Amino acid sequence: MLSKNQIKLIKSLSQKKGRQQQRSFIVEGIKGISEFLKSDYTLKNLYSTKLIFDAPQDLIVEISEVELKKISALKNPNTALAIFEIPKGNPPQDDGLIVALDDVRDPGNLGTIIRLCDWYGIKDLVCSLNTVDCYNAKVVQATMGSLTRVNVQYVDLYDYLEFTRIDIFGTFLEGENIYSATLPEQGIIILGNEANGISEAIEKTVSRKITIPQFGAIKETESLNVANATAILLSEFRRRTIEK
Amino acid sequence: MLSKNQIKLIKSLSQKKGRQQQRSFIVEGIKGISEFLKSDYTLKNLYSTKLIFDAPQDLIVEISEVELKKISALKNPNTALAIFEIPKGNPPQDDGLIVALDDVRDPGNLGTIIRLCDWYGIKDLVCSLNTVDCYNAKVVQATMGSLTRVNVQYVDLYDYLEFTRIDIFGTFLEGENIYSATLPEQGIIILGNEANGISEAIEKTVSRKITIPQFGAIKETESLNVANATAILLSEFRRRTIEK
Repeated sequence: MLSKNQIKLIKSLSQKKGRQQQRSFIVEGIKGISEFLKSDYTLKNLYSTKLIFDAPQDLIVEISEVELKKISALKNPNTALAIFEIPKGNPPQDDGLIVALDDVRDPGNLGTIIRLCDWYGIKDLVCSLNTVDCYNAKVVQATMGSLTRVNVQYVDLYDYLEFTRIDIFGTFLEGENIYSATLPEQGIIILGNEANGISEAIEKTVSRKITIPQFGAIKETESLNVANATAILLSEFRRRTIEK
Repeated sequence: MLSKNQIKLIKSLSQKKGRQQQRSFIVEGIKGISEFLKSDYTLKNLYSTKLIFDAPQDLIVEISEVELKKISALKNPNTALAIFEIPKGNPPQDDGLIVALDDVRDPGNLGTIIRLCDWYGIKDLVCSLNTVDCYNAKVVQATMGSLTRVNVQYVDLYDYLEFTRIDIFGTFLEGENIYSATLPEQGIIILGNEANGISEAIEKTVSRKITIPQFGAIKETESLNVANATAILLSEFRRRTIEK
């Protein structure tokens, strides 16, 4: 049986403040939980209606469907809910390709970008302090386990970029065409906010302005979705490394 | 004043059945409506709290904020709601690059794919009959006006693909690497369902299996989101056309 206090504690993790205070976050569903269990993440508690997980017995609490419904954020909870520790993570290295997000707000976009980083072998994802929290339940859900393989760090983005020694790329309307530009194997690629793009302060740190050209006769499309822009950029940067 | 009957008719357009019966769909918000007004779409009615649109006066109905809230599907309705005619559209030509969707179900994904088609100058988007309706309010919203520039057709996808004479591309795990494959200027690119990919029946029509390779040491990412896969494929196909 879950106590009122336990339920309250678990529920508080749906808010960023609660997650930061307890240094913990929630993963729901069999598949997601299994991905985190086999990763380096540390399990704190596992609440499940079925005893099907390979985890330390003292951390598993068997609960009823009714109890699961009480602690779950999902309309249709799926068997279990686990609480994992938020790792300290490692400061990003000035090495290889790094993705930096300047104020990306949509959880779905961040989740998809983490999946893309995983796909394209990007180890470090650096986020501005205003970027949506990667331990938000919707982000965790959207990453489909990729979060266990990408090192996400929240930093003062301007400070971080000011002191890096590698090239900083940002997409702008008037940049170099990415299809013909020389793209190195190491560098930082900045993606901006969904509505406003890269902020003025961050723009100043960009050493290489690039652009994804539009095709077709009518060029009225306003912009690409930030996750799609990330997909196209990572594809272009990585393609060059196989051609060498 | 809107009559009960008018409100009922407008509300019925939030369902696919209602849209098909009336051959009409809803566009909400100043920006979206303005995009459709300057396109080839035919306006049927415009309900607005402000008289700011350049449209035939006999089609404009001034309404109150309270009335707008009654007919809007949005939490925070934005000034106006317009009803446009669903165009017949043109059958896709076996010419240039065509995108075909085999059972894409998420409105956000379809909206983003339409934006990508617009960006990469794809004129024809062919959808299986089970693909989400492009006149669904969430799709219209997500396309941000691109729907006015892409010809979307719903067809029996298998029949359509059986009779085409151009190459049919589909992404599979065991396909040719897209970065090194020869990609023509014309062809049909098929994207599959979010959970199940391209169906078995449609797979049989594919003449060229291709793959987006994974990078990095750990290759556990399950798959790319369908809109991101579309972004990467269109980028690769179009890039080749500038290099020539």
